[in-house]
Amino acid sequence: MQKRILIDMDEVMADVMPKFLDLYEERFGVRLKKEDYWGKKLYDLEGAKELREVLYEKGFFADLPVMDHAKEVIQELMGTYEIFIVTSAMEFRNSFVDKYDWLQEHFPFIHWRNFVFCGQKQMIDADYMIDDHVRNIEKFRGHGLLFTSTHNIHEHRFTRVNDWLEVREFFKIADAL
Amino acid sequence: MQKRILIDMDEVMADVMPKFLDLYEERFGVRLKKEDYWGKKLYDLEGAKELREVLYEKGFFADLPVMDHAKEVIQELMGTYEIFIVTSAMEFRNSFVDKYDWLQEHFPFIHWRNFVFCGQKQMIDADYMIDDHVRNIEKFRGHGLLFTSTHNIHEHRFTRVNDWLEVREFFKIADAL
Repeated sequence: MQKRILIDMDEVMADVMPKFLDLYEERFGVRLKKEDYWGKKLYDLEGAKELREVLYEKGFFADLPVMDHAKEVIQELMGTYEIFIVTSAMEFRNSFVDKYDWLQEHFPFIHWRNFVFCGQKQMIDADYMIDDHVRNIEKFRGHGLLFTSTHNIHEHRFTRVNDWLEVREFFKIADAL
Repeated sequence: MQKRILIDMDEVMADVMPKFLDLYEERFGVRLKKEDYWGKKLYDLEGAKELREVLYEKGFFADLPVMDHAKEVIQELMGTYEIFIVTSAMEFRNSFVDKYDWLQEHFPFIHWRNFVFCGQKQMIDADYMIDDHVRNIEKFRGHGLLFTSTHNIHEHRFTRVNDWLEVREFFKIADAL
């Protein structure tokens, strides 16, 4: 029986930060540097709360860049594991089609049977989860890998992966066990 | 810990048959009676294969009637159980928004956190599943309730419920155990 990995989209497969940095710059005339926001969500910076509203707009999720090495590492993992792409899309009615098309464009080797759009994740049974949200990893009964993102850097309870190359390394070791 | 029930949408919460009967009549000039199709999917009747194409059209899932008693029985069950609405939407890119709006219109008391749009269901962990598809019930590790639909009437391995009143009766007994 193949082991199963749940993979999150935003801030794991898709890089949301460049778009938020652009929006912040448009709105406030400042290009933030990593030290300005590292440790927080961009829209938790003073005066920037309204930036989160863009998540509800049609098209926001359509053209996000793919995280470095996500494609080849996921394709490699599919040789050994059953992969599900599990994204908390339900808060954002306009995101469904954007996310679906994005997956089909950038990850055409993942079948739509393995996409899950949901509002929470703890009812999905798997061996591993790769996610940037502490709340998802906390409730997961398998082995969670916390994918580094600005908002989770102060968390130390879980296996951390800083990028997809570290994900590859983790599973090389897991496979050998 | 609350027990969890997974509830399917099409042919369980939403009645797909009236629309297919209308389409068949439009296309072939005949209003089918139950004995004409009972035991099959409508689009498995001779010459009717193309009828299935409507499932891909925008709007198909938007205005389906709610199954009798689904509202009140689901609302009752939510007093005791954790409910997830789990629908195999992923084959139908145009269905996402239709299904989301339909749920919010007819079942406003179910939070979007409890919606799941997926391509298969066996990775979702629950105690009960109410579904019309034998393939979903077969792979489910909890107790499956097969909701009667024309295409599943020859199946005898699972607990069968013919309507939502029978669902209510089943859980009255389950609660008492």
